[in-house]
Amino acid sequence: METRKFDDQVLLELIDRRNFKQLRQALDGMNEVDVATFIEQLPREKMAVVFRTLPKTMAADVFSNLEPESQQIIIDAITDQELSIIIDDLFVDDAVDMLEELPANVVKRVLKNAAPDTRQLINQFLKYPENSAGSIMTAEFTDLRATMTVKEAISHIRRTGQERETIYTCYVIDSARHLEGVTTVKDLLLAKDDELVANLMDTDVIAVHTMDDQEEVVHILSKYDFLALPVVDHESRLVGIITIDDAIDVMEQETTEDFEKMGGMIPSEKPYLKTGVVELAKNRIVWLLVLMISGLITGGILGRFEETLAAMPILVTFVTMLTGTGGNAGSQSSTLIIRGLATGEIKTSDLFAVLWKELRVSTVIGLILAAANYLRVVIMYPGQSAVALVVAVTMFFVIVMAKTIGGMLPIVTQALGADPALMAAPLLTTVVDAAALLVYFAVAFALLPI
Amino acid sequence: METRKFDDQVLLELIDRRNFKQLRQALDGMNEVDVATFIEQLPREKMAVVFRTLPKTMAADVFSNLEPESQQIIIDAITDQELSIIIDDLFVDDAVDMLEELPANVVKRVLKNAAPDTRQLINQFLKYPENSAGSIMTAEFTDLRATMTVKEAISHIRRTGQERETIYTCYVIDSARHLEGVTTVKDLLLAKDDELVANLMDTDVIAVHTMDDQEEVVHILSKYDFLALPVVDHESRLVGIITIDDAIDVMEQETTEDFEKMGGMIPSEKPYLKTGVVELAKNRIVWLLVLMISGLITGGILGRFEETLAAMPILVTFVTMLTGTGGNAGSQSSTLIIRGLATGEIKTSDLFAVLWKELRVSTVIGLILAAANYLRVVIMYPGQSAVALVVAVTMFFVIVMAKTIGGMLPIVTQALGADPALMAAPLLTTVVDAAALLVYFAVAFALLPI
Repeated sequence: METRKFDDQVLLELIDRRNFKQLRQALDGMNEVDVATFIEQLPREKMAVVFRTLPKTMAADVFSNLEPESQQIIIDAITDQELSIIIDDLFVDDAVDMLEELPANVVKRVLKNAAPDTRQLINQFLKYPENSAGSIMTAEFTDLRATMTVKEAISHIRRTGQERETIYTCYVIDSARHLEGVTTVKDLLLAKDDELVANLMDTDVIAVHTMDDQEEVVHILSKYDFLALPVVDHESRLVGIITIDDAIDVMEQETTEDFEKMGGMIPSEKPYLKTGVVELAKNRIVWLLVLMISGLITGGILGRFEETLAAMPILVTFVTMLTGTGGNAGSQSSTLIIRGLATGEIKTSDLFAVLWKELRVSTVIGLILAAANYLRVVIMYPGQSAVALVVAVTMFFVIVMAKTIGGMLPIVTQALGADPALMAAPLLTTVVDAAALLVYFAVAFALLPI
Repeated sequence: METRKFDDQVLLELIDRRNFKQLRQALDGMNEVDVATFIEQLPREKMAVVFRTLPKTMAADVFSNLEPESQQIIIDAITDQELSIIIDDLFVDDAVDMLEELPANVVKRVLKNAAPDTRQLINQFLKYPENSAGSIMTAEFTDLRATMTVKEAISHIRRTGQERETIYTCYVIDSARHLEGVTTVKDLLLAKDDELVANLMDTDVIAVHTMDDQEEVVHILSKYDFLALPVVDHESRLVGIITIDDAIDVMEQETTEDFEKMGGMIPSEKPYLKTGVVELAKNRIVWLLVLMISGLITGGILGRFEETLAAMPILVTFVTMLTGTGGNAGSQSSTLIIRGLATGEIKTSDLFAVLWKELRVSTVIGLILAAANYLRVVIMYPGQSAVALVVAVTMFFVIVMAKTIGGMLPIVTQALGADPALMAAPLLTTVVDAAALLVYFAVAFALLPI
């Protein structure tokens, strides 16, 4: 349930009638995200016209919610002076996000038009490695001193708050900018006016380092339910904060990447509908070629037993079912473990707990599937009870093997410093498929008169 | 980088020496989440001892961060009076979360010891259906009147803020509790003291209905970067709010469920390491049995062509590679589309855009894989260039078919009101495997002298 006072049709008519005064009033009452969505849908030549109509107080907010392509269209259409105002109004993290996507010549023009201290800050932030806490932090935080009274602190916030990304979490620093404590506007408002910030602040500060991984940031914010997290440099000086809304974006992006990796693709930050055909094909073909090697190996094994299969053609019937079920059973386990590792619920030290659990679960499942398959083969292929036994015994071993490998592979991969989501799926398929066939023929040779 | 002044060892020694005064001081300086984590690790009989040592101001916060099993241990160990204080200090959403997990007799004792109005509120909240906005909202919001001045509003917040889950987003309601507007503590603090709330509030309020799905709540909070979202009843009266930290929990839980469904399991809300063997086996066996039907179908097709395979045994060699690559290609597409549907980036109306994109991507990939396979078979099996052609042509058609089906199936499933993550994987495997084999034999009959 979302309410909007003006629908797109009304706004479009105002544009066509060039009634910019009423358009401005309508846009002023709207949420910045909705204005950005509306501008995105406009034809190229109308984007800048509508953007220029926006009240000054909204311009930077709407701008930061546009896609990089649209940002560039607007940058190309506005004057250096207009650009300069927008850049200085943007929060540093939004400016950095934008510059990472724009072509070099546009970046040059943007930086040229930024105020010198803004430019210096942006350049410094652009240096942090991708996916580090430094690369997603912003510099507009609220800092207090321990010696301030609550009254002084609140009046400081009221004076400086306009330019801060959040005022709700306040960081207490000393003269060397070392982080001493943290307090909230809620605590300040609920305290007496003459109370000292020193007595109010929490000194058990949880912070991240500029070079920490952004996933660590998401874990901590989600674990402690914080609205913002302070970022310190190697000398423990406060250099930035990461707010919860940016952490949510990171979370969604990392989850999408995990889905893509587990689906056997090179992860891409671009949304599906905006990614070109060639790029999509490139992201997908690598793993399909790698996974074909798995097919090569199983094909080679099947080829080696060609004569056996020619002698007992009924054995072919169960090949895809056994490798398929093995693959499914293994990926059930690996999916749970990869997700557990991503949310931090499972740690590499849990290796043996996982092994023990998967062994028991797979024994239960293996026995049930073996029994079900024995019955099915006996009923569907009368007189082939020896084959039924081969299928049942193979099924049991394949399930146990697939699930223990599926459970342990992601943990081992992570312990070796590799990415479990990226490595587990292809390795698992290859190993389980090949092993399933070897077990199948070994059991067949042992139990059948071949 | 997280700092803790007292490590667990120090705290455990304080417990052993029964030095409760110092223990209380140490716990007082810690974050509530860390205290809860510490209590979880203790043996059963020490949990309540440590919990009772906590300062009164922390008790409810720590309690709400405990797992249901630990909450029950503590409830069983404390007096009715202690219980009554904690229940009234809990936010309604945390109390409801807990009661949904506890056994009936414990729920009875908890409700008996709650104050009458708390009990009434809890009972009302327990009635909202699972996964609805009502089921995750809380009643402790900050409400203002449009006629208040900024000064009056701030003093109202300072008076009542202690019991609110958040004070940062304030909701303006009329005498019938209809939602009129929304403002923030930031806007209030930055405004002049005699300004009216009416002039400050944003009347373009974005709200959800109590019966809306919790996923809708997550989408809106994430889209607009809000810290809280108001929930209204069928008469547009404000009945609760959902804060960003609760939305993040929902987000993580829904993502885990999507991973479980796409991995072919019945989703479970319990963490992996805390789920029993039988329950894990039960969650997994259903889909393995369903997926075996897929094996049955492909097995049946292979059985029908037993004679062909016996006449040309080399054909068996490529069966698993073709079905496997088809499955992988299809699940690449379905993974991207399912995730896009979950984040709201792809809508059911994009069906034809997806179809057109997948057709083109699969043509590119199909041609490359066909060429690679032709070369490989020609090189590895000299004199079998006709077979190489069969494999290459089949590969092309299998890729195009797998990717278009993989792209469209999730959208069609969603359009029919079913869950794409749940339905796509098993259906896709079954259809693609069977179709791949039929295409393989059709191409073989057309091109080979069988």
